[in-house]
Amino acid sequence: MSDLPDYGQAFARWRAEAPAWDAYTHHAFVEGLRTGRLPRANFLHYLRQDYLFLIQFARAWALAAAKAETLAEIQAAAATVQALAQYEMPLHVQVCARAGIDTAALEATEEAPANLAYTRYVLEAGYSGDFLDLMAALAPCVLGYGEIGARLKGSGGPYCDWINAYADEGYQRLCRDVGALIDTALITRLGSDWASLPRARQLSRRFATATRLEVGFWQMGLDGA
Amino acid sequence: MSDLPDYGQAFARWRAEAPAWDAYTHHAFVEGLRTGRLPRANFLHYLRQDYLFLIQFARAWALAAAKAETLAEIQAAAATVQALAQYEMPLHVQVCARAGIDTAALEATEEAPANLAYTRYVLEAGYSGDFLDLMAALAPCVLGYGEIGARLKGSGGPYCDWINAYADEGYQRLCRDVGALIDTALITRLGSDWASLPRARQLSRRFATATRLEVGFWQMGLDGA
Amino acid sequence: MSDLPDYGQAFARWRAEAPAWDAYTHHAFVEGLRTGRLPRANFLHYLRQDYLFLIQFARAWALAAAKAETLAEIQAAAATVQALAQYEMPLHVQVCARAGIDTAALEATEEAPANLAYTRYVLEAGYSGDFLDLMAALAPCVLGYGEIGARLKGSGGPYCDWINAYADEGYQRLCRDVGALIDTALITRLGSDWASLPRARQLSRRFATATRLEVGFWQMGLDGA
Amino acid sequence: MSDLPDYGQAFARWRAEAPAWDAYTHHAFVEGLRTGRLPRANFLHYLRQDYLFLIQFARAWALAAAKAETLAEIQAAAATVQALAQYEMPLHVQVCARAGIDTAALEATEEAPANLAYTRYVLEAGYSGDFLDLMAALAPCVLGYGEIGARLKGSGGPYCDWINAYADEGYQRLCRDVGALIDTALITRLGSDWASLPRARQLSRRFATATRLEVGFWQMGLDGA
Repeated sequence: MSDLPDYGQAFARWRAEAPAWDAYTHHAFVEGLRTGRLPRANFLHYLRQDYLFLIQFARAWALAAAKAETLAEIQAAAATVQALAQYEMPLHVQVCARAGIDTAALEATEEAPANLAYTRYVLEAGYSGDFLDLMAALAPCVLGYGEIGARLKGSGGPYCDWINAYADEGYQRLCRDVGALIDTALITRLGSDWASLPRARQLSRRFATATRLEVGFWQMGLDGA
Repeated sequence: MSDLPDYGQAFARWRAEAPAWDAYTHHAFVEGLRTGRLPRANFLHYLRQDYLFLIQFARAWALAAAKAETLAEIQAAAATVQALAQYEMPLHVQVCARAGIDTAALEATEEAPANLAYTRYVLEAGYSGDFLDLMAALAPCVLGYGEIGARLKGSGGPYCDWINAYADEGYQRLCRDVGALIDTALITRLGSDWASLPRARQLSRRFATATRLEVGFWQMGLDGA
Repeated sequence: MSDLPDYGQAFARWRAEAPAWDAYTHHAFVEGLRTGRLPRANFLHYLRQDYLFLIQFARAWALAAAKAETLAEIQAAAATVQALAQYEMPLHVQVCARAGIDTAALEATEEAPANLAYTRYVLEAGYSGDFLDLMAALAPCVLGYGEIGARLKGSGGPYCDWINAYADEGYQRLCRDVGALIDTALITRLGSDWASLPRARQLSRRFATATRLEVGFWQMGLDGA
Repeated sequence: MSDLPDYGQAFARWRAEAPAWDAYTHHAFVEGLRTGRLPRANFLHYLRQDYLFLIQFARAWALAAAKAETLAEIQAAAATVQALAQYEMPLHVQVCARAGIDTAALEATEEAPANLAYTRYVLEAGYSGDFLDLMAALAPCVLGYGEIGARLKGSGGPYCDWINAYADEGYQRLCRDVGALIDTALITRLGSDWASLPRARQLSRRFATATRLEVGFWQMGLDGA
C-alpha cells in the first residue's frame, strides 16, 4: 500500500491499528462510487444524511477550537469550520438541488441512527475528553475521505464531482494540514515518544471506534433510499 | 391506556408526542421478556451491552449534577448515580455471573453501534444543551423501563428477576421522583406555561429521538447473540 | 441616554437590569482613555491582559458555534472567531510591538485573577448552560465596548487608535449583528414573550455578573502596571 | 517540612512546583484561624462565600464523574459529591445558623469575584480539558485544606470546630484517597514516567493557578466583612 497518501505519523499508526479501516475505505458504497454502479437513490440518501452530518461536524471542529490550547490550534480549527461551511456543504446543496432536493428538504431530513451514532460519538469524545480525543475521533472522516479521494481520482463516471471534491489538491492539502496539526498537538502535550504511552491506546481506540461508525454510515447509504 | 403509571406532566406530554413510544415499550424483545420466549443468548447479549450502557448512563447523570442549578437538583442527580451503581449495575453483574460471564468479560465487551448511538446522543445532548436537554434525553430510558416494568409485573417466567427489578416499588418511586424533578426543573426555568414555548418542541424532539434509539437498542438485543 | 447605540432588545433590557453597567462603561480607566490621562504603563498592562483575554474569548465564541442549533448560528459564531483573530488581536499585537512588547512577551504574561475570573466565568456559563447562557455572558464585553467606542468617538488623544477600533463602523456593525443574533436566538427558543419567563431572570443575572467582572477587569488595568 | 501529610506522588510534586503554595497554606487568614485572632465577621464572610463555593465544587466533582473513564473513577468522584453534600456543607449551615445566618441568607449571598474566579477556573479546566486537568485544578482545595487541618490540629480556640473538620481522620482519609485516585489516573493514562512529559507541566500549571486563586479566596475573607 505504498501509494497511500501521507497525512502524518499519528494517522499512519492509527490507521494500521483500526481493524475496520479497509472495511471503511473499501466499502461497497465506495466501490459503487468508483465504478459508477451505485444507484442514484442511494447516493442522494447518503448525501442528505451527509449534509446533516456536516452540520454536526462543523460543530465538532468549533468545539476543537474551544478546546485548543494555542492560538495556532484555534486558528486551524476555526479555518476548518469555515472550510466545511464554504467548501463541502455548498457542494452537497448544489448536487441535491440538481436532483430536486432543496435546502428546506435537506434540513427537514431526519437523522438516521448511523448518523446520530457517529456524530454524537465524535462530539461526546470531544466534550468528555480533551483536544486529542477530539482529533482522534475526527480523523477517520477527514483523512479517510482524503485517502478515498486520492485512490478514486480519475475514475470518472456519474460520481466524478464527488470524487474530485476529495481528490482535489485543496482537500488533499487540508488533509496534510490536519495530519500535521494532530502530530504537533500530540508531541506538544505528550512528547515525541507519545506512542509508547497508555494514552496512545486510548486515542487509537477512539480512532478505531469512529472508523467502525464510518462503516455504519456507508452501510446506511447502501441500505436506505 | 388508563393503567399507565403517572410519572408527571412532562413525561405524559413527551410520551404522547414521541412517534416511536409504542415501538419501544412493546418491542418484540420486551414481549419476549414477558412471555419468556426470548432466547437466553439474546438476553445475555442485551445484558452485556446494557452493562456498558449503564456506565455511560451513570456518567450522564453525573453530568446532570454538574449542570444542575440548585442544590436539590445536584442531590437528586447524584443520588441517581449512586442508585445506578448500587442497584441496577450489581443486578447485571449477578445475572451475568450466573451465566458464566464475569466482570472482566463484561467490561471487555465492545460497545455495539446501537449502544454508542444512544449513550453518546444522551451525553452530547447534555453537554451541548442545558439541564433540561439532558433530562429530556434521559427520560425515555428511566421512565420507559418503569412503564415496561409496571406493565409486565407478575408475568413470571425465566425473566422475572429482570421484570421485578423495574416493577419494584423502589424503582417505581425513582421514576416518580425523576418525573417530579423534570416537572419542577421545567417550571423553575420556563414557567408553568412552558409547553406553549418553542423550547418545548426542542425538548420533545430530544425525547422522541432518544426513544427511537431505544428501539434500536432492543433490536440490537434481538439481532445479536 | 437617548444617544446610546441600539444593539437590540435583549441588550437594552439586560443593560437596564445590570446594576454595574455604568460602573463598567464609565469606569475611571475608560475616562482615562477618553481624556488621555491614563498612564501608558496602565494601558500596556491592560493590553497585555486583554491579549490573553481575547484568546479565551475566541475560544468562547468557538464554543458558541459548537452549541449552536442552526447553521446560521454556527456561521455567525465562527465569523466572530475569525474577526477576533484577524481584527482585534492584531491591533493588540501592533500596539504592544510599538511599545517594545513582542508576541513572545505577550504570550508569557501571567493571567491576572480578574482576567481568569471573567474569561472562565464566560466559558463555564457556556459549558454548563446552553447557547443563550453563553450569549448573555459574552454580551457585556462585545456590546459594552461598542457602547464605549460610540461614546468616546472623536475624543482624539494618545488612545485614539484604541477608541477608533471600537467606534469604527465595522465594529459597530458587528455589535448590531451580535445583538440581532441574540434577539433571534431568544425568540426562536423561548418565543416572543421570553422576557416574562423565569429563564429571562437567569440570563439577566448572567449578563449582570459578567458586567461586574468587566469592572474588575478595568480596575486590574488601573491597579497594575 | 517532614511533617507534611502524605497525599501521594502527584500532590508532592505539584505542591513543590506551585510558587504560591506557602502563601496559600500559611495565609494570614489561616494564621488567624490558628491563633483565634481572626475577627468573627471575617470568618462568617468567608463561610458564606465558602458555602457558595462548595455548591460549585460539588458540581465540579460531579463533572469529574462524567469525565471518568473507569467505573472506579466514577464511584470515587460520585462519593466525593455525596461527602461534600453530607459532610462539609452541613457544617457550614450549622455554624452560620448559630451566627444567625439562615439557609436563605446563605443562598442569597452574591458570589465575590475571588469566588467566581476560583470555582469557574476549576469547572472550565474540567470542561475544556480532561479528567486529569480537572483533578489538578481540584487538588489544591481538597488537599490544601487537609494539609492546613493537619498542621492546625489541636490549636483549640474559637475556630476549633472548623480546624477539627479538616484535621479529622475522616477528612485526612479522603485526602489520601483523592491523592491515590490522582496518582492512579495519571499512571493509567500517561504511564509511570508521566512526570517527564510536557503534559506534566500543563497539569502542574493548572495546580499552580488554582493555588493562586486559593490565596485570593483567603484574601477575600480577610478584606470583606
